[in-house]
Amino acid sequence: MEACNETLNPALRSWVTTANLSGTDFPIQNLPFGRFRLSSNEQWRIGVAIGDKVLDLKAADLINHADMNQLLAMKKEARVALRIAISRGLKEDAPINRSTLEKALIPQSSVEMGMPCDVGDYTDFYVGIHHATAVGKLFRPDNPLLPNYKWVPIGYHGRSSTLNVSGTSFPRPCGQVKAADAEVPNLQPSTRLDFELELGVVIGQGNHQGQPISIEEAEGHVFGLTLFNDWSARDIQAWEYQPLGPFLSKNFASTLSPWIVTMEALSPFRQEFKRADGEPQPLPYLNSETNSK
Amino acid sequence: MEACNETLNPALRSWVTTANLSGTDFPIQNLPFGRFRLSSNEQWRIGVAIGDKVLDLKAADLINHADMNQLLAMKKEARVALRIAISRGLKEDAPINRSTLEKALIPQSSVEMGMPCDVGDYTDFYVGIHHATAVGKLFRPDNPLLPNYKWVPIGYHGRSSTLNVSGTSFPRPCGQVKAADAEVPNLQPSTRLDFELELGVVIGQGNHQGQPISIEEAEGHVFGLTLFNDWSARDIQAWEYQPLGPFLSKNFASTLSPWIVTMEALSPFRQEFKRADGEPQPLPYLNSETNSK
Repeated sequence: MEACNETLNPALRSWVTTANLSGTDFPIQNLPFGRFRLSSNEQWRIGVAIGDKVLDLKAADLINHADMNQLLAMKKEARVALRIAISRGLKEDAPINRSTLEKALIPQSSVEMGMPCDVGDYTDFYVGIHHATAVGKLFRPDNPLLPNYKWVPIGYHGRSSTLNVSGTSFPRPCGQVKAADAEVPNLQPSTRLDFELELGVVIGQGNHQGQPISIEEAEGHVFGLTLFNDWSARDIQAWEYQPLGPFLSKNFASTLSPWIVTMEALSPFRQEFKRADGEPQPLPYLNSETNSK
Repeated sequence: MEACNETLNPALRSWVTTANLSGTDFPIQNLPFGRFRLSSNEQWRIGVAIGDKVLDLKAADLINHADMNQLLAMKKEARVALRIAISRGLKEDAPINRSTLEKALIPQSSVEMGMPCDVGDYTDFYVGIHHATAVGKLFRPDNPLLPNYKWVPIGYHGRSSTLNVSGTSFPRPCGQVKAADAEVPNLQPSTRLDFELELGVVIGQGNHQGQPISIEEAEGHVFGLTLFNDWSARDIQAWEYQPLGPFLSKNFASTLSPWIVTMEALSPFRQEFKRADGEPQPLPYLNSETNSK
């Protein structure tokens, strides 16, 4: 992370003055990536949020394409170099190419934000131990966590075609619901629509099928994080979920935030991983304690 | 199906004489679609199998593109019209454009077959009642099928990025396995690699998110069928699968046959759906008994 220390300096300010307001989501230390357009008949462009503006990276001559998945797949050195170039262009003190960047700035209020990238597939992991314990208690009050829970990451595949950017409307799902005292199920709109606030982990560089990524290399494949809402129809889920897990109760829609916050921007907020006393040591292939310090 | 009756006539023979041999998989009544290439640095082409040959549809002037997903998404009338055109060109008696088609014929022995189409996502349904009963008995001898089984289709999402054409090699999966008498799990290559012979249903025309397809319209969205092998690591599955279903034990690879056999070609073999006495009537939205007769 040394290479981008200059971009993380808390004293750094931007000539985009709204980026210096206290409480802004988009100070110059953040610089998240997203896709935007000015009208619905336009291709998506790649932008970086700064204050109340979005910087069009191609118009600013900082990249030469509009393919977010290509940007996500850059090696870490290249993406850190891009972050440094953006930061040096936007900083208050002796910015580089300010006039070019000024022409590439658009008010966020006048753009439509889209899905930040194309998602080929995604996995929903059950990694919140408090959530897993609370849900497990409903079924097994004395033994909420199954024996595998602290050893193997529990997850299942989601339906990537129903991912949308936050704010997108979708119809209330219909599905089979069976009341406890009913003899047969009934097809009806869900009456127990719920949300799940999750963390979206955006994988940039892929791997070849069957070639494992070691735990030491894994973090280099993570481009950044988003917020993720896994909409859930609890009444449909209760009837359908055994024995293969939730399906139609989850796959009608999931929504994620338009901005991907990079691992670089998040690094100052990182906390050391603390394993509680008595919890098992992960198997070596999953043990990241050494490299997360 | 009336429109393509002429293509299904059992007496129909082809001027590609190997298509007339008894026991061939590819008589003129079949005409399945697949993707092939002559060398690995070539784009995939769309072909139809006939005897021991493959007909290059674009070279035969029968289509003007090489995008199988576009072909799959054709409306039923258009795909039946294409089937009739192929059949009329390949039939023995007064074929249309035989000389053009002859130039577009390539021996199957000299081509590489690929994935028949691009698969955005796929769902693994648990619809074999004998399989579900046998598996269920392992866990619940007195009550193998859960109460939802005969009412709601049970399924889960697979990992589309690990789909490959039949015959593709892949590494034996490694994963966590826990022996019954072991205190902790162990990371090891699977020693219980299994296959599951399934039916692949290729959906051609899609729908807009949230717009249901009625049971009466559903079959029109099915382009055809393939064989599908859902490779399974049973030892990894036994340890990981609760409570959200199989995951790493299934998503390392699935393979499917290179040829998609169309619903039109299969229509003569269709059997009437028979619901056994005492089984529940499906809810109306799933009841296809009327339109499958």
